Amino acid sequence: MTYGMIATWEMAYDGLQKGLAHLKNSGTAADALEKAICAVEDEPTFQSVGYGGLPNAQGVVEMDSAYMDGNTFQLGAVAGITDVKNPIKVARKLSHEKFNSFLVGAGATAYAKEVGFTMTEMLTEKAAQAYQERLKAMAESNLSPYDGHDTVGMVSLDDTGSMVAGTSTSGLFMKRPGRVGDSPLAGSGLYVDAEVGGACATGLGEDLMKGCLSYEIVRLMKAGLTPQAACDEAVYSFDAELTKRYGKAGAFSLIAMNNTGDWGVATNVEFTFVVGNVNQEVTLYTARPDNQGGTIIQAQ
Amino acid sequence: MTYGMIATWEMAYDGLQKGLAHLKNSGTAADALEKAICAVEDEPTFQSVGYGGLPNAQGVVEMDSAYMDGNTFQLGAVAGITDVKNPIKVARKLSHEKFNSFLVGAGATAYAKEVGFTMTEMLTEKAAQAYQERLKAMAESNLSPYDGHDTVGMVSLDDTGSMVAGTSTSGLFMKRPGRVGDSPLAGSGLYVDAEVGGACATGLGEDLMKGCLSYEIVRLMKAGLTPQAACDEAVYSFDAELTKRYGKAGAFSLIAMNNTGDWGVATNVEFTFVVGNVNQEVTLYTARPDNQGGTIIQAQ
Repeated sequence: MTYGMIATWEMAYDGLQKGLAHLKNSGTAADALEKAICAVEDEPTFQSVGYGGLPNAQGVVEMDSAYMDGNTFQLGAVAGITDVKNPIKVARKLSHEKFNSFLVGAGATAYAKEVGFTMTEMLTEKAAQAYQERLKAMAESNLSPYDGHDTVGMVSLDDTGSMVAGTSTSGLFMKRPGRVGDSPLAGSGLYVDAEVGGACATGLGEDLMKGCLSYEIVRLMKAGLTPQAACDEAVYSFDAELTKRYGKAGAFSLIAMNNTGDWGVATNVEFTFVVGNVNQEVTLYTARPDNQGGTIIQAQ
Repeated sequence: MTYGMIATWEMAYDGLQKGLAHLKNSGTAADALEKAICAVEDEPTFQSVGYGGLPNAQGVVEMDSAYMDGNTFQLGAVAGITDVKNPIKVARKLSHEKFNSFLVGAGATAYAKEVGFTMTEMLTEKAAQAYQERLKAMAESNLSPYDGHDTVGMVSLDDTGSMVAGTSTSGLFMKRPGRVGDSPLAGSGLYVDAEVGGACATGLGEDLMKGCLSYEIVRLMKAGLTPQAACDEAVYSFDAELTKRYGKAGAFSLIAMNNTGDWGVATNVEFTFVVGNVNQEVTLYTARPDNQGGTIIQAQ
């Protein structure tokens, strides 16, 4: 018997504890992931996911989320959705649809409302204040408006061998209305095959989607690489290739877990992530590139 | 010197002739592709792309398009955009943006208007009539509302070795507002690496995005496979895997061209496509699976 979860960023710590407790009690990978991501979405102090997320250039919190079932490859996703308390729940529900499983913009919001998901204003007072301050700072200087692309991404494995992956984000602070990053895109933001493993991404979505890194990591694991070797190979070779071709690679960080609960990570920036499995309590790690094709990982 | 273009569906025939004529006169792969896709978008009798495209469940023509530059991996995409004469032009323009290069819904439409692209009502009288007839037929029987997922996808190679890929579609007829398929998604609807080749998809987007087939075909070509072998390997193995895991694989068809102008195709249904290159005038082909892992291709 084995089970485990891995997630991007320190903000996933509490959520992962809830998810792992669920797995410990023979809960499903799917429910564990939903609980864990909802915990991140619901926490107002996290400024890049769900409630409390930073708004777009018009002051509206637009969110992206995706859910993938590694047993069936079923996928559900939303992008540019507003006023929905838990985008991951909408994505999961959509994964059961044969048609219309990826919805964007006003259509996504209308669907969530129609189906009966909890709707709420997602812009907190603190996020509104950050928005006003940024507007002021932009007016005063040549400040680049964009930052805060910290997606929560998770891979979850339960003791029946089922695997799922999910992502949730409010995207780039001050993004153009309707901007979508890699998070809701299969192959870029997430990918999972329960016979192999899963992977998720966080970072500059515009660059991540140029490389389909989540798909590539799962493919490399299928070809026999460990999760760590697969992450290193996919991330650092693409970082080098994108730098060569495009001049610069944005920040990106990938996590992976295989179907035995082993895990890996690779990143071209300082990055925190959280892991727990049958052998290990939930642990916070930092990761950074060793600049020789590998990753330096330290438990906190 | 070599150049070439490949495109999904017979509807691309006239567009490909325009594109190929441009390449013959040392035009760029990018301009040839834009001309060719605009020709398909502008033709009102084509019911699944651009002007004349069939509308969503609310009678609105919502379009998806993507553009990828194989030299730099730059990507631009729109989804659920309305009232824009040529979505491929918007996608190409967005590919030059470092941030906000994938826009959806009302934000995408607002961007196109702001930047000055030609805006127009995309619902033709004929498409509106087809919509009314479908509503009536659905009220009278248990007819599945969804069909017409014929995306135009193209790969273009010019005599400098530059390669680009692009897609454009109005998506599923009677789709939910905001529904997005594979067409605007890098790795699923299209992928291109000018040092290797490119690929595009058409078919049921909900299933295509489960497999990242355009990325996989380019990867297999990079590993040394011919375009035909890469298409066969990626498409038929995923068709079998999806059928095993999910019970059924929707219709999908993939085309590919490598950086020497050789091409390939694989499909799990009857499919038409168009090819032209330095050695060959624009030719219409049909393709179907041989059910032994290969593809039967016949010139028309």
